Formats: sequence, structure tokens, C-alpha cells
Amino acid sequence: MSPARPATRRLTRYLPILGWARHYDRSTAASDLVAAVIVTIMLIPQSLAYALLAGLPAQMGLYASILPLVAYAIFGTSRTLAVGPVAVISLMTAAAVANLGLTDPAAIALAAGTLAFLSGLMLTALGLLRLGFLANFLSHPVIAGFITASGVLIAASQLKHILGVEAEGHTLIGLTGSLLAHIGQTNILTLVIGSLATAFLFWVRKGLKPRLLAAGLPPRLADIGAKAGPVAAVFVTTLLTWALNLSGWGGVKVVGAVPMGLPPLTVPSFDPTLWSQLFLSALLISIIGFVESVSVAQTLAAKRRQRISPDQELIGLGTSNLAASLSGGFPVTGGFSRSVVNFDAGAETPAAGAYTAVGILVATLVLTPLLYFLPKATLAATIIVAVLSLVDFSILGRAWRYSRVDFAAVFATIALTLGFGVEAGVSAGVLISILLHLYKTSRPHVAEVGLVPGTQHFRNILRHRVLTRPDIVTLRVDESLYFANARFLEDYVLDRIARDPAPKHVVLMFAAVNEVDMSALETLEELNRRLAETGITLHLSEIKGPVMDRLKRSHFLDDLSGQVFLAQYDAWAALTAAEAGQAQAG
Amino acid sequence: MSPARPATRRLTRYLPILGWARHYDRSTAASDLVAAVIVTIMLIPQSLAYALLAGLPAQMGLYASILPLVAYAIFGTSRTLAVGPVAVISLMTAAAVANLGLTDPAAIALAAGTLAFLSGLMLTALGLLRLGFLANFLSHPVIAGFITASGVLIAASQLKHILGVEAEGHTLIGLTGSLLAHIGQTNILTLVIGSLATAFLFWVRKGLKPRLLAAGLPPRLADIGAKAGPVAAVFVTTLLTWALNLSGWGGVKVVGAVPMGLPPLTVPSFDPTLWSQLFLSALLISIIGFVESVSVAQTLAAKRRQRISPDQELIGLGTSNLAASLSGGFPVTGGFSRSVVNFDAGAETPAAGAYTAVGILVATLVLTPLLYFLPKATLAATIIVAVLSLVDFSILGRAWRYSRVDFAAVFATIALTLGFGVEAGVSAGVLISILLHLYKTSRPHVAEVGLVPGTQHFRNILRHRVLTRPDIVTLRVDESLYFANARFLEDYVLDRIARDPAPKHVVLMFAAVNEVDMSALETLEELNRRLAETGITLHLSEIKGPVMDRLKRSHFLDDLSGQVFLAQYDAWAALTAAEAGQAQAG
Repeated sequence: MSPARPATRRLTRYLPILGWARHYDRSTAASDLVAAVIVTIMLIPQSLAYALLAGLPAQMGLYASILPLVAYAIFGTSRTLAVGPVAVISLMTAAAVANLGLTDPAAIALAAGTLAFLSGLMLTALGLLRLGFLANFLSHPVIAGFITASGVLIAASQLKHILGVEAEGHTLIGLTGSLLAHIGQTNILTLVIGSLATAFLFWVRKGLKPRLLAAGLPPRLADIGAKAGPVAAVFVTTLLTWALNLSGWGGVKVVGAVPMGLPPLTVPSFDPTLWSQLFLSALLISIIGFVESVSVAQTLAAKRRQRISPDQELIGLGTSNLAASLSGGFPVTGGFSRSVVNFDAGAETPAAGAYTAVGILVATLVLTPLLYFLPKATLAATIIVAVLSLVDFSILGRAWRYSRVDFAAVFATIALTLGFGVEAGVSAGVLISILLHLYKTSRPHVAEVGLVPGTQHFRNILRHRVLTRPDIVTLRVDESLYFANARFLEDYVLDRIARDPAPKHVVLMFAAVNEVDMSALETLEELNRRLAETGITLHLSEIKGPVMDRLKRSHFLDDLSGQVFLAQYDAWAALTAAEAGQAQAG
Repeated sequence: MSPARPATRRLTRYLPILGWARHYDRSTAASDLVAAVIVTIMLIPQSLAYALLAGLPAQMGLYASILPLVAYAIFGTSRTLAVGPVAVISLMTAAAVANLGLTDPAAIALAAGTLAFLSGLMLTALGLLRLGFLANFLSHPVIAGFITASGVLIAASQLKHILGVEAEGHTLIGLTGSLLAHIGQTNILTLVIGSLATAFLFWVRKGLKPRLLAAGLPPRLADIGAKAGPVAAVFVTTLLTWALNLSGWGGVKVVGAVPMGLPPLTVPSFDPTLWSQLFLSALLISIIGFVESVSVAQTLAAKRRQRISPDQELIGLGTSNLAASLSGGFPVTGGFSRSVVNFDAGAETPAAGAYTAVGILVATLVLTPLLYFLPKATLAATIIVAVLSLVDFSILGRAWRYSRVDFAAVFATIALTLGFGVEAGVSAGVLISILLHLYKTSRPHVAEVGLVPGTQHFRNILRHRVLTRPDIVTLRVDESLYFANARFLEDYVLDRIARDPAPKHVVLMFAAVNEVDMSALETLEELNRRLAETGITLHLSEIKGPVMDRLKRSHFLDDLSGQVFLAQYDAWAALTAAEAGQAQAG
């Protein structure tokens, strides 16, 4: 009622925290705190592992899990999304930074931070411009194919840590070749640790939960217990490596010295050359990160009948990435597994994320010396087990059965991701989706229709028993008419008339024509003229409101040789009567 | 009847000359010869001028008008198209070569020839793959805007020759700035020649034809007389310059020494760096050249009720460009004004083009010494007068009235062409057309419909007086459902239901849904699930055959909570009856 209301609502749109913080009470705080403790425990090994995957020092993973969570708690709209480093984005960061050919660790870290900064700027700008719909241009099967192929690439990239060898590459062939070339140098002790950790984590994922359930734990707790497996693996292998000095005499590679203390204040590079080199990578990371995050957020919101705002989510993720770039981090987004844990653990507001940030901060202040003897093979095992759950090649079979076009897009995305890396894969996926869509609509389905007897309904003469007349050809155009298919319709109609001299009337049934753009308008004018030259009148029926409004702004309807009918049945009745009248008169 | 028939027909498809040459007789030859003489006279100054526009030696324009015409006569399908250097493609060639930053004239000529070679390869490959439909992705308004803006750029680029100063630039701002910086060095004698030639040529174009008609000439001859204006201007100004030695004491720039003799055999560069630098330019030149040429060819073919084959046209233009690259030329395509002259002069077969080639060949053997004193200002005047007829800003007004989206595409194309050059302009035009189309279809029109009383027809409740029931919501979806708009429909339906708790049935009327891709299928499955959770059944009606075939390959129809109706009226009748029955029972 007060004049301040709309302004407040507007502010709440951009600062969702103003909405939920007013109703924050002790019981909500208790739920959020419990969830935060559980997520913190899960996030410590994950953050370290994803920093490793991105080719960055382990502590950057921790830094990327502090301030970004606070930023999301302020600007994000999902109650339960947990942001931070995630597998696919970390792999894309590694690929983007590798393109630069840097060797100095400080330069690499600066590039990763700058990537987060650029991505943060892009996401925030898209959000302020309310362009969240752009994410829709990635088709579901393309995303599924990309995630599957990325999972395979990520798992392959971690094998070197399990084997304890050096290897590099950003494609499946490159990685495999590099691994095979170095396989002779495998460190047996590392392989034993890595294999046991991997086997243990697979067992935890598949076998532990049923046992915990059988032991009488409630499902939610059993689930969380199973998710804590990586922490146990980290704890046991670190203890063993320290106690037996495996990194000394055994050559097991460990995380090593991790600086202790608050995240540093970092400033991204403003070098225009670096910006232009990172631009495309930042864009792709923004798109993939946004799509992944929004789909997780929507899935969780739907379960509790909450809504998220995609445009505000862009701002939430954008500010998170800006925060990451200013506090020693690298690109972040909303992660699937950690968000599910947060949700299952009972988080009720984004405050849980802020509490998690405090937890990770405490870890960087206290725990980092304990991480010295953590074997890299253990972190690799946690990554492999996590990403292999993303791999699902069944999308290929489902796409093949449903539509060859969707299959082509998925197959190309998977093949290009595996063969040429993540950036080529996702770019190709977007382009192929769009081009195949344009190709499909550039050759629209046109059906010749007739009257279903006893009704006022018209259907395809090839599929149904319908009434037709030789002097009236009715064509139902099953596509919007626009530049890519405008000429096709003209050719189709003229070919139909050329094959059969009987028709005196051509009726175009526009029930499925949702748009007539200017290119198509010119083609219709041309068609009207050509048909008139051969003595055939052109009629239109069932033009939709918005299309009719548009056509009325041109001269087309004035020049049309025939009429415009509201319903196809009206056209049939009027033209039949007119021809009958003429036949009688003649 | 003989088994050789299909093979012959196949061969004729790829070598159209085999079709028309069999019926070639003396009367056809006479018509073709007359046309060839007229086109040759017109083509000599034009070829020289367009070479100048492309930043190449004048003789290259002549070379580009010999072998390419022969190649088109063999492989082309239009009876009257005249290929050779044209204004827009010459400007694009100049821009592409300027990007390379070359200064050595031989290297520049080699780059231009290589550009023709690459473009020839692309066009031929697209033709063999039958990908002519790709040209449809350029919308008509975008082409119109691009041609208009290019005309302005070309005219501006020629002003330096009229003023007799040095100037460069590939954008309107760059050109204007450069001209203003050098305007103090204007050569008055050159300006006089250039201005008089321009004024004369404008008069020839606007004023001569009516006078010739008034003097009793038949319209066709009057037209050709008017088209011969440039030859007169060339003849008179060359004679004056030679007689008065204007290039000596007056500083009037002339074409100078043009080598006499047969076109040289040239080999394009196979340097991969050069190829990658020219790749995008060659692609854009191919697309624009093809679109321009095909639209000219189709216009002329329609007038004589002939047909052209776009895919074979690609091969015709491709081989023309390959021929240009091998004989000292540069990129060519079918030109509008010369083709119209050829048509009006009575050309009946592509042999007219071959005869024109002979005419130009004779000119290179005999006339080149006479061209020494031809002022560059005269050639610039012919270019300016020719291209200003292409300039038509009215497309902006027409697009504005018809559709803001088309207007945005035209405006951006014109602005970017003028501001950033031809390549940026045409690339932006293609991208903007496609993105705007995707944007439009990503927010489809959805209408709530009701029954038009006394019919079986359903229309928008906001536009028509129709019958509705509170317990049945019928939504007509006015767009194919695919990845870009899949989520939109889900949100729309859920919002509609959230606003009004009365509905028990939601019917989606799919009359305008021409495709349901896999992303959309997943969304429909989700929608069905969510509606079922709130006790609402989902029905579909008027699903088209191809869409139905597709849906049957998934589990969607088995899981659907409601039914699928052939016609919307059936859905209305059945659901009304069911609800009435329930009300009675209850």
C-alpha cells in the first residue's frame, strides 16, 4: 500500500536475500547449520580435487568455495543450490588455460582468475539484460552428450595420477597416447593406493547405502553417510602416507605444502590480449555453467514447489564468479552432487551456503597442514568415481530411436568433445543444433488435405479417407514461413500446379503458419502473381491473429486474387458453391 | 528407351550445354551474336572499372570476362545470365585483399586469384553436395540492406578518383575521413572530367531513353542505346585526354599501359597460411555472389517461363571462378545489369556468353593500347552511376512497417556494413537473421481457444466470441516445439493453472506444432507428470501425422494422463460429456 512497496519488490528481485532473511528464525538456522556441516565435510576433498583437475594449486579449490558461496547466498534465488568448483567447468578451465601455453604457475593462476572474472562479467551482464533464455539454445540431448563425453575425458585425465606418471592432452586420443607412452614408469605403490581408493569409493557409492539402510539408518542419513566416503578415503590414505613415509621412499605424489590462512585478495588481469584469448572460453564456461546450475536448481526447487528466476540466477552465478576472481579462486557454478547433499541434509535457505563458506574458511585456517601427505591418487579416485556417474551413453540410443536429427547432434557433440576437447564439443553442439533446426524448417512438411466426411475437419489425403475436388487444391503448410523456407513453398506450389492442369483454386491453409516474415511475404506476393498469370486464384484460410495483423500492414491482402476465409470449411463451402454455380450457368 | 538414356540425362544435369547445344541452329546463333556484340561493348569499360574497384590492374577485369564466361556457358543453367566482375564482389575482393596488408602488386594479384580459386572450390563443392538451399539463410531484407549499404560504400570509394586524390579505407567513416584529409590536393581538371562524366551518365540513364523513344526507336533498342552511355563517355574522355595531353601537364590520372595479348595462365597460391587468411572472405564472397546471381537468373528465367537449377548454378559459378583463377582474373559472379542487357538484346542460349568472351578476347588483343589515356575518373563515374541505382533505403521503411524484427536485421546489416565494412556487415546480417528467428520462436504465441458457436471451429478467446468451460482449458500452441522454446510452454501452462484452480482438463491443441524434438518431448513428459500430481489430466488434439509418428516412438503417449483426439471438437465433445456424466453421478 505504501509507495515504497514497488521499490522494495524491485530491490528484492535483485537481492533475493531481502526476501528470505526477514523470516529467518532459529529453527531455520538450525537446519541450515546441520546441512552446512555436512556439505563442508564433503566439499573439502572435492575442492582440492577439482583444483587439481583444473591444473591449479590445491588451495585455489578451497578459496573458490568461500566467497563465491557468500555471493550466491546474497544474489541467488535457489534455496538449496551449492556453488563452487565443479568437474566439467574445472576441465574447461584447464583446457582454456592450456591454450595459452603458459608455464609460470603464477601466470596460470592469474589466467584462471581472469577467466572467472570474464565469466562473472558475462553472466552478470546477461542477467541484467534478462537474457537467460539464451541458455535454451543448448538442446537437452546435446547437453546430455556433452556431459557424458566430458565425464569420459575427465576420468581419462585422472588416470595419470592413479598410475603416478606424467601425461597430458585435452582429447581422448591425446590423453590415451600420452598415458601409453609413459605407462612403463608406473609407480606401483601409487597404483595400489589409487586402485584401492577407487574401489572403496565405488563400493561406498553402490554398496554402503543399502547396508546402512539395512542397519536401520533413516534413508537420508544413510545417503549422507555414503556421500562421506571420500572424506574417509582422504583421511585413511593421508594417515598411511604420513605414517609409512610413502611419499619419501615410495615416490607417492602428495598434495604438499598448502598455504595456511585467509584467501588472498587477487586482482584479475586487464591485459586486452589475454581477454581476447580467453573470451570464447569464458563464454562457453558461462553457458555450460549456467545450464548445469539452472537445471540442478530447477529440479530441487520443483521438489519443494519453490520457483527460481533464471535471469536472477545469472546474476547469482555472475557475482559468485566475480567473487572467485577477487579471492584467489577460479570459475565456479552450482554443482549437482553437493546441491543434492545440501538439499537432503535439510538446508532451507541460502544461509546454509554462507555457513559452508565459514566451514571451508576454518579449514583453510586450520586443516591445511594436515593435507600435506594427502596422495594425489586419492583425489583422482574421488574425481573418477564422481564423474563416471555422469557418464550415460544411453542418450545415443534414445536419440536414435526418437529422431535421427537429435541423434546427429548428440553423436557429433560426443565425438567432437572426445576427439577435439570440450570447447570444440560444446561449440559444435550449439551450432549443430541450430543448423539442423534451420535445415529441418527449411524444407517444411506440406500436406494436401481434403474434408473428413461428416465433419468440418480437413486432413492429409494420403493418410485419411477424405473428400476432394479436382478444381480445388488445398495445401496445409506445416511450418512458419520465413527466409529459410520461403522459396521452398513457392517451388512446391508451382510444381503441384505444373503436374496437374485441372485446379482453378489453390487454398493455402495457414493453421500451422505462426509467422510470415518479410522474405516470405515477398514470396507469397510472387506466388499470387504467378498463379494469377495462369488463371488460378489463390485463397488463404485459418490465418492466425498475429499473422493476420502482420499481413494487414502490407499490400498483400489487397492484391490477393482470391479470398481469406476464417475456417477451411468456409473456403470449401464457398468455392464448391461458386464452381457449382458456374457449371450450372455454363 | 535405350539403356543410355538415364546416364545421358544425368550427364545433361551436370553439363547443361548438352541439352541446349543439340537444338542449336542458325537463327539462335544470330540472336546470340547480336546480344554478344552489345554486351561486349558494355562490358569493356565495366570490366576495367571493377578491376580498379577491386584494387587490381585494369587488364585483370578483362581477363575475368573471358574464360569464366566460357565455363558458365558449359556448366550454367540460365540461358541469359552474364557472368564477370561485379561491383559488390569486387568491393569484397578489395576488402579481403586489404586485410592481408600486402604492398607488392604481384602478391596482390596472386591473392585475388587465390580468392577466386577458393571461392570456386567452395561453390563447386556446395553444388556437388546439392547444398544450394544454404543460400536461403540470407533473408531478403538483409540482402537488400547489404546491397544498399555496399552501393554507398562503393560510391564513396570512387570519390577519390573523381577528385584525383589518394584516399583509402573500407568503412564509410574511414573513407570520408581519408577523403577530407586529402581534399586540399584535389586535381581540378580531374574533378571536371569526373563530374561531367558522372552528370552525363546520369542523364543517359534518366533522360536519354525517353528521348530515344520519342525519336521513334523501339523500346528495346532505346534501352540498349542508353546502356551504351559508358562507352561514349570512355571514348570521348580518352580522346580528349590524349589530344590535349591532360595526363601530362594536367596531372589527370589515366589507366596507363595495359599489357596486350592473351590472358596469362596463372596458378593460385597453395600456401596454407594464405588459404586460412582468405577462407572466411572466400566463403562470404561465395554466398553473396551466389545469392545475387541466382536471384538475377531466376528473375530472367521466370520472364520466359524457363527454370534454373540452383544446385547446378553453384557448379556453373564455381567453375567460372576456377576459370578466373587460372587465367589472371579475380572473383566473378552473374551481374544484374549485364544480364538484363543480354536478355533484352535477345540472347537465347549461353552461347551468347561464349561469343562475348571472344569479343573481350579480341579487345585484349587489339584495343588495350587505346586504353592508355582512359582517365580513371571516367571509370569511377561509370561505377558511381551503376551502383547508385542499387541504393534503395526504402527497404528500411518497408521493414519498419511490416515487422520490427525484420527492421532490426536490415538496420544492423546496413549500419555494420557502413561502419565496419562489407564482411562484418554480411556476417552480421546472417547471424542476426538466424538469432532473431530463434528468439522469436523461443517465445511462441500460445492462445487459449474456445468453440465458435454453431461450428466445430476453435478460436482465440481474446479475439472471438466463443464458448468455453471453466473445467476445460484448451491452449493452442502456435509454434513447433523444440529446444529453444521447450521450457517456455511448460512455464506457460503451469502459470495458467496456478492462476485458476478450476480446470480439471488441459487440452493442448497441436494443429500448429510441426515438430516435437527430444528436448520438447522431455518437457512434455515433465508437464504431464506435474499436472497429474495436481489432479489435472493432459490431453492432446489435432496432432499431425509426422509428429504423431515421432511421438509413437517414445513412451510419452503410454504415460499420458489423458487422451489424444483427432480433432479439437472431439476433445470438447468427449470431455464435456464426461464432466456432465460425473456431475450427474455426483
